[in-house]
Amino acid sequence: MAPATFSDRLYNSIREKNSVLCVGLDPRWELLPLDLRNSCHGLGLEKIARSYSNFCSEVIDIVAPYVPVVKPQSAFFEACGAAGILALGAVIDHARSKGLLVILDAKRGDISTTGEAYAKTAFTGADYEGQHYSLFAADSLTVNPYLGEDSLEPFLTEAEKVQGGIFVLLRTSNPGSGLFQNLICEGKPLYYHVADAISRWNYVTIRSHGYGSIGAVVGATNPRDLKELRSYMPGVWFLVPGYGAQGGTAEDVRESFDDNGFGAIVNSSRGITFCFKPDSKDWKAAIRLAVEKTNQQLNAVRSR
Amino acid sequence: MAPATFSDRLYNSIREKNSVLCVGLDPRWELLPLDLRNSCHGLGLEKIARSYSNFCSEVIDIVAPYVPVVKPQSAFFEACGAAGILALGAVIDHARSKGLLVILDAKRGDISTTGEAYAKTAFTGADYEGQHYSLFAADSLTVNPYLGEDSLEPFLTEAEKVQGGIFVLLRTSNPGSGLFQNLICEGKPLYYHVADAISRWNYVTIRSHGYGSIGAVVGATNPRDLKELRSYMPGVWFLVPGYGAQGGTAEDVRESFDDNGFGAIVNSSRGITFCFKPDSKDWKAAIRLAVEKTNQQLNAVRSR
Repeated sequence: MAPATFSDRLYNSIREKNSVLCVGLDPRWELLPLDLRNSCHGLGLEKIARSYSNFCSEVIDIVAPYVPVVKPQSAFFEACGAAGILALGAVIDHARSKGLLVILDAKRGDISTTGEAYAKTAFTGADYEGQHYSLFAADSLTVNPYLGEDSLEPFLTEAEKVQGGIFVLLRTSNPGSGLFQNLICEGKPLYYHVADAISRWNYVTIRSHGYGSIGAVVGATNPRDLKELRSYMPGVWFLVPGYGAQGGTAEDVRESFDDNGFGAIVNSSRGITFCFKPDSKDWKAAIRLAVEKTNQQLNAVRSR
Repeated sequence: MAPATFSDRLYNSIREKNSVLCVGLDPRWELLPLDLRNSCHGLGLEKIARSYSNFCSEVIDIVAPYVPVVKPQSAFFEACGAAGILALGAVIDHARSKGLLVILDAKRGDISTTGEAYAKTAFTGADYEGQHYSLFAADSLTVNPYLGEDSLEPFLTEAEKVQGGIFVLLRTSNPGSGLFQNLICEGKPLYYHVADAISRWNYVTIRSHGYGSIGAVVGATNPRDLKELRSYMPGVWFLVPGYGAQGGTAEDVRESFDDNGFGAIVNSSRGITFCFKPDSKDWKAAIRLAVEKTNQQLNAVRSR
């Protein structure tokens, strides 16, 4: 039997946990529970980074039985410097040890050996003097398509070595996303051209359940566009940000699912991980409740 | 007198050093001089990272009298994990201490608080518990425009706080760059729409010498396009990669300069820093010669 690809693992985990929720891990010092902040020691950024890995590990322990996947946001860890990189690695490893898939949200993109360096950092590591060193064992990584096909190739190559995947930015949920993404290019919006490329890259990775490992990031901000894209790119997993704190509702993401309720995972970050006030004593219970409630909301719109 | 902006500092340094060469710092273990490799100690990735900062510091010492600016490539440092982040910080600080401007090549791009986190990491740092921590003191940063105007705003904001700048990816030098960048959108190629946005963002930063702090990355692969873009976006600094080892010649970059020989800096990475065999004993002299020769080549095409 062929080994399980990212797409297989995602499909199976969604079935098993009956959840399409991706929990975004976007740690912010000022939003962390006070009791957790007070329990962290160390100097300066090391303390902040340690609080991030402790908090994210707690979140992972809480959500692991309920959701298939988490998405750490690299930027917040990078903002803690070297200590943040160590924390990010610890968070990824902890999530995997709890049976969660990990999408590293870093929106990388570069060409040639530079793209390869980013891809090796996320997926495979590198060899020096006959010794192998791996950094992040992500299952998937967000990437930016602007540089074109050859800029995505190193990511496809390294991801494939670990049966991983990538999510390519397609149509994002921010107010200004349309400036370039919505330009009409040779008969259709730019993002449809990106969609064509993603479909092409994804096609050869599609498995018997119907989906492949090269996905697309599609914001929850316009249900009609989501519906059109869903039918335009069958077999492509959607990663849908913008749910919850960013304003998207379950109704807004309904059209991202196929007839069987698959084909999309919906990310919520602050709506889950910061659904409490910092001085809350019951923040763990609040997170568990938020996950269960969000799962219910999303499952209600998955069935046709 | 208003403080010197990135654009002022770049303009003045080009004049002072009579050079438009940007030396790319893309360290690769297997290309480092053997004597330097052998002089580095430490365990695993820490040793690799230390060799990168040692090598880049040597390069900086050699090139500082001859060029205005260096461009460390974040990907190669990130590939060394936490130790790589420390090395990158050390390289940036060392370059600045030698009077060089630093363009951090990280091709970042994200929205809202995430974009802000990347921008603070590159330029300004952050405050925790009443204490300020800064990481990288870059003068400028490469950014990806695909997510639209609001994704660039945090970078503009943080850069401005330190009188810094950004270089927005416009038309890149890789073979596959045209897949999206060259699509004809509403009457002109996509990259012309990106050019319009860059010109608009740059306009308010233009100084008396004619240039602003919001630049564009334009590959050296097509002289005709370079000429058209040069006249299309007056006042916008071009960062031109692809010179030397990537195949671009001085003739190819001629059109990136304005009538006064300003308006562009040309990056060469491997052509300068790895212009020798690893077992060379004279690698420092070779780098110096390569810089002087490249300066001559570029200055020959700067004058009309």
